[in-house]
This record gives sequence, C-alpha cells and structure tokens, in this order.
Amino acid sequence: MSKVLIVNSGSSTFKWKLYGLPDENVISEGMVDRLGQVNSVFEINFNGDKIRKNETILTHETAVKETLQMLLKINAIKSLDEISRVGHRVVAGGTIFKDSVVITPKVVQQISDLSELAPLHNPSQVAGIKAFEKLLPKAIQVAAFDTSFHQTMKPVNYLYSVPYEYYKKYGVRKFGAQGISHRYVSNMAADYLNKPIEDMKIISCHLGSGASIDAISGGKSVDTSMGFTPESGLTMSTRAGDIDPSLVAFLMEKLKIDKVEDMVKILNNDSGLLGLSGLSPDLRDLLAVKDTNERANIAIQIYVNRIVKYIGSYIALLNGIDALIFIAGTGANNPEIRSMIVDSFRYLGIKLDKKTNKESKGINKISAKDSTCDVLVIPTNEELMILKDVIRLTGTTDENDEQVIEKEEVTN
Amino acid sequence: MSKVLIVNSGSSTFKWKLYGLPDENVISEGMVDRLGQVNSVFEINFNGDKIRKNETILTHETAVKETLQMLLKINAIKSLDEISRVGHRVVAGGTIFKDSVVITPKVVQQISDLSELAPLHNPSQVAGIKAFEKLLPKAIQVAAFDTSFHQTMKPVNYLYSVPYEYYKKYGVRKFGAQGISHRYVSNMAADYLNKPIEDMKIISCHLGSGASIDAISGGKSVDTSMGFTPESGLTMSTRAGDIDPSLVAFLMEKLKIDKVEDMVKILNNDSGLLGLSGLSPDLRDLLAVKDTNERANIAIQIYVNRIVKYIGSYIALLNGIDALIFIAGTGANNPEIRSMIVDSFRYLGIKLDKKTNKESKGINKISAKDSTCDVLVIPTNEELMILKDVIRLTGTTDENDEQVIEKEEVTN
Repeated sequence: MSKVLIVNSGSSTFKWKLYGLPDENVISEGMVDRLGQVNSVFEINFNGDKIRKNETILTHETAVKETLQMLLKINAIKSLDEISRVGHRVVAGGTIFKDSVVITPKVVQQISDLSELAPLHNPSQVAGIKAFEKLLPKAIQVAAFDTSFHQTMKPVNYLYSVPYEYYKKYGVRKFGAQGISHRYVSNMAADYLNKPIEDMKIISCHLGSGASIDAISGGKSVDTSMGFTPESGLTMSTRAGDIDPSLVAFLMEKLKIDKVEDMVKILNNDSGLLGLSGLSPDLRDLLAVKDTNERANIAIQIYVNRIVKYIGSYIALLNGIDALIFIAGTGANNPEIRSMIVDSFRYLGIKLDKKTNKESKGINKISAKDSTCDVLVIPTNEELMILKDVIRLTGTTDENDEQVIEKEEVTN
Repeated sequence: MSKVLIVNSGSSTFKWKLYGLPDENVISEGMVDRLGQVNSVFEINFNGDKIRKNETILTHETAVKETLQMLLKINAIKSLDEISRVGHRVVAGGTIFKDSVVITPKVVQQISDLSELAPLHNPSQVAGIKAFEKLLPKAIQVAAFDTSFHQTMKPVNYLYSVPYEYYKKYGVRKFGAQGISHRYVSNMAADYLNKPIEDMKIISCHLGSGASIDAISGGKSVDTSMGFTPESGLTMSTRAGDIDPSLVAFLMEKLKIDKVEDMVKILNNDSGLLGLSGLSPDLRDLLAVKDTNERANIAIQIYVNRIVKYIGSYIALLNGIDALIFIAGTGANNPEIRSMIVDSFRYLGIKLDKKTNKESKGINKISAKDSTCDVLVIPTNEELMILKDVIRLTGTTDENDEQVIEKEEVTN
C-alpha cells in the first residue's frame, strides 16, 4: 500500500502526518518540538499508542531521520520505499506559485529565493525538502503554498496605496496566508451544503493563534485580512494586526529602538492578546478570567471587534454572504466567541441556533433555521488538503512510472 | 452688530471667515496661501468683490495683521472692537479636550504640549492664537478640536492591539480627526430627516483630500477610520491609509532609508491617489483619464474599495445603518463616486435615486424612495460648526460683560 507523508517544517517545530492510500487514512502522526534546541521533544502516535521522548535534535535532517527510523521501528512502515510521496507546506509562494507543485531543484531554489517574504519559514521548509531529498531519494515531493489560494486576488484588493513603483520594483502587495485552510473549508462548505461553489459568497474565519479572514466568491479568494506579511489584519495571539503605520515611528522614538526590525518583532511577538492582556496569548486563559480581569476582558472585546469589522467589510465587498465559516482552534471550538461575533450581524438576519452552536463537534451547521446565511463550523485539515493536492498532481498510486518520469523531466 | 472671526491657522495657509451675529451670515472670507514663503497669496472676498495680491507674508502674526487691516480698509468692519470673538480650529486635542473650549493661557500651553500628535498643525494654531491675543486683545478666543468628537469612542475601538503599557505610558490610541465635520453633518442629517439623533445609526464619509469615515450612534462617534494620526484609514490624495505595518521595515531596507520619519513622510505625501496613479492627487484628474489610463483607473477602484470596506465594517459595528452621509469635495460633488460606493450595498437594499444623485446641489437626500437607508449629501461647514460652538460657549452678543469677566477669571 502506498503511503504519503505530509510535513510542516517550521523554524522550531517539525510536524507530520502519514497517510495511507487510497483510503486517505492517518496511519501515524507526530512532531518534533523545540527543534534546534538541546532539549527537543520527539512525539509520535501510532495505533493508539503515544511515544514521547526528549533528545537533542538540532537540524531538520536529524528530525526527518529520527522520524523515519521510528516509523520503521514501530512497524508503521516496513520499508522506506513505502513512502512514495512527501507533501510540504510552504508559507510564501509569492506570485510564482499559483497552485501546489511537484518539487524540482528549480522549485527549491525559488522557494529559497522567496525567503524575504517569510524569513522564518521558507528557509526551514527548504531544509525539510532537502532532508527528504537525501533520506527518501525515490519519493516525489510536492509543495503546497499558504499564499497560492490568494493569487486570484485582483489588483484593487492586493495593491497598497503606496507609490506604484514599490509594487513593480520590490513586489510590495498583499499576499495573504493560511490559504490552504481557507481553500479546504470553502470546498468543504459547498460539499456539506450541497451547493455549487461557483455560485457561493463565502467568508471564512480561520481563528487560531494566527488568524485571518477570507472573502471567497465562486471558490476564489477575493480579499483576505493578512497582507504583505501574516502580521497584519486581525488581533492575534501575539500579533498586533492592523495599526496606524505612523505608530512604528512614534514608538521607536519612545522606546529608543534603533532598528525598525526590532519594532516589527514587538508587533509580531509581544502584541495582540498577550500585549493587551499582559496575561496570556491564549484566548481560553482570558475567557476564564474575564469577569474579574478588566484587561483580559478588553482584549477579548478587541479580538471580537476586529473580526466583526473584517466580516462586515467583506460582506460589503462581496455584496452579500451565503455562508460564514468558523475554522481552527478558536473558530471550531469556542461557541462563546462565535456567538459574540454572529450577534453583530442581526441587521442582516444572520442567527445561530444556540443549542447547536454550543454542542457543535466536527463539521456542523450552527445557524438557526430562519437565518439568512448558513453559518458552519469546520475543523480545518490542512494536511488533508495537501494530500489531495499530492494525489491530484501525482496520481493515486506509486506504481505510476509515468509520474516518476515526469518528475525527472521537470528536474533536468 | 457683533462679529466673529473663524480661523484655520495651517502651517502654510491661513484661512478665515467673518460672521455677523445674530444672523450667522458670512460678511467676508479670505485666506493667505503659501504663508511663510516670499511669494504668498493674499485673498479676500467681500460684497461680491475679490481682492487678490501677492506679497511676502512670513508669519501668522503678519497674516492676521494684514487681514485685519484689509477688513478695516474695505469697510467690512469699522473698528477692530467689532470682532468680539475668534474661533480657532485646532487639529489635535488629545484626551484633554472633549469639547470646544474658551482659550486661556493654560489652554494655549496644552495645545502646544499636544504638538507631538500633530507636529505640523498644533504649533501653527498656537501661532495663530498668539497673533490674535496680541492684535485683538479684547476678543474672546475659542478653540474647537478635530479630535473632540471622537473622544466618545470606547477602549474596544480606540485601543490598538499593541502592548497595553504603550497606551498607559505614551498615550498610544486612536484619536481620529475631522470630528468637527462629522459632528456638523450628523446633526444636520438628523435635522434634515426630522429624526431624533439619539435613535440614529449614521455613517458619515468625509471625502476630501484628507478623508475619513465615522460610525456615529446616538449622535456619538463610535469608531472612525483615522487613527493615532490622520495618516491611517482610507486611501487619500497623498496618504497611504492602512498598510501592513511590516512594510515600513521592508521598504526602508529596499529604499535605503535610515530614518523611519522619512518613511512616514512618503506614506503621507507621496502615496494615496498620487502614488498609485503617478499622475495626480486629485480624483477629478484621474476620473477624466480613467478610460485610457490603467493606473488612474486602478487608483480610483482602490479609493472606492477602501471606502466600501470601511462602510461595511461600520455597518457591522453599529449592527445596522439609518443614514449614510457624503461630505466634502468628493463626497458632496461627485455623483459618479457616490454611485460606485453605494452600489456595493445592494445586499442591504440601499439604493440611490439616480437623477437626484446626479443633480444634487447643497444638502439633499439622494436615496431612492424604496431604499432601506437614507443617503444624504451634505456640504460640510466646519466654520459654521465652530461658530455655533463659540456662541454656545460665549453667548450670542458681545455686550455680555459677564463673558469677558468669565474669561478673565479663567485666565488668571
């Protein structure tokens, strides 16, 4: 049986899921956390058992090697050849990658060249790809980009109102992110509702520690809240989202910061829910104390407020809405936040079914029967979306010699 | 007859209107343009005649002196004592000035201390106030602030998602601007529609070379598109409005700019419609060539797009809308742009009456009979709003000795 490994090589984590084909079932999954540090955490789940150990894993290559060896050891695979394909999540695809792609040396170089747009992520992902090239030389590798889905945006939505030559010369524009997730759930929503996606106006809210909202019309991303980088848009766990850009200058002077990069780091790492509350980047922690802690309470209000404003702006942009989707950690698991958000759209007749909202597990329609718009909860599954791309690009079985030939042709 | 002078002391212009009381009629108006340069323009209108001359006017004091002398010369006033009060427009009132105020030495100092929030404007306005103190020592002076109206915003709307101590220590928050205009037209709208403002949800769009949108509920500003500075929010003539704050760092590196203030200047002076089109900061110039000039066309689209998104977000924030108001240069005079904007709200049943929209002059209701929301055009009149504040704070006549006594009491 052919197996496909879907991986996410981050800067300090390496996450993966092993799928069986043609069933698309998860055989095993795991991760290396604190990658690059002396006390890394190695974790693997297989057949209901969990292995967890601490060891020093300094490179992506070591992480991949340890993972493959463990898969053999626990008999999740019998030989490395069983893993015929590896799908990689890549953060920045710029304007080059409008779809997922079979990886060739040229593609690796291009991903590397795009590192300026994701300095923390793309280099790690290149390291992951190279590790698999070395350790699983026969496997076909595929890259799926967080930005590809948003490449359908038009200039009116992706251009910033800065001098136009910055776009021409330096590629300054909105790229968006989390596109794999938005693409997955928008398709799932159309399937679930049994409506043609071509006719649907969808707004999807990926609310995790990173968060973004996407306006989707006819299955295509029209506009999204993340911008040139994933720093902008909503209030996130530690990211400021949209601020007055003049504040960068004002704060640098006040804080006696010389380098603008250091200011950007503060906006990425010390802001958002954490910066507002001074307590935690985790919304659940803030919800737990909101009645007694005013700053936790205000952080939650601001979090919801920014989501409401983005949804409102995208309803106007799409000139209506057919489905509102909540995804990811908070989106899929927090009925209280969903209820606070949807309550702002009474003027449009969007209503939740209180009971269903509260008890929702898995994919679910949580809007009331007389709601003017379907509201759905869909736990996102980016790995499965990447797997589907791998299959689309390379076929369902590894016996397909033509695929291998095609890879070699593209490579040379 | 008592007369009141309403002035706007800018950094390079000095504009004024002389009103007669109790009729609130404009007796004369004029301006000094290119103030501080060798070839300033002095302009005055009176009784249908226009005087225009070039001369070197280097300071606000000279501008005021020349203006007063000319008013005497043309017999617009018989003596300087006729001008009993002077109302000043002031850009930044911070959190101190929640309403217009009679000017005392303390107030002058406070306006000066707030210069950090409006480095170009507040010092000029202080210079204007001091010139009148010297040249019209008996007149009572009043300051009306562009920010006061927005002081009703709540923390959920005025706080940025940056570390909370920046708010506490450095006063980092949204202040908004153009509040005199938004206050004036929202009250005018309620009067015109004969509805109690307390019950109304209003969104007002001040679309001039500077532009902002205000969400107003019950006569109070709830949220507004300008932020800590008037740089953020909409795409304006030369201002970028909202951008990904990370772009400040990225562009500084690309453009080899050392000082973050220089980057902010580009975002203020070389961006917006001018930066996008490379042609003109004036929307009318772009509309004239949009069919043959793609960059002019895209600049217009982006201009409209950002307005639509802000209106949409504020409809959600207010959970509905009763009146949409268009104000200022573009807002009051450009039916094409108004039509492009309102067309995005068909989903809510907001519709224009095409003929009325096209032919509208002065204050007018331009929505169709079956529109779910009233759409109004109101030429703003910030000077008249300031005059009304002057009267509210100092009474209708200058014979009121108590007022003078009150001023002296406050002063000492």
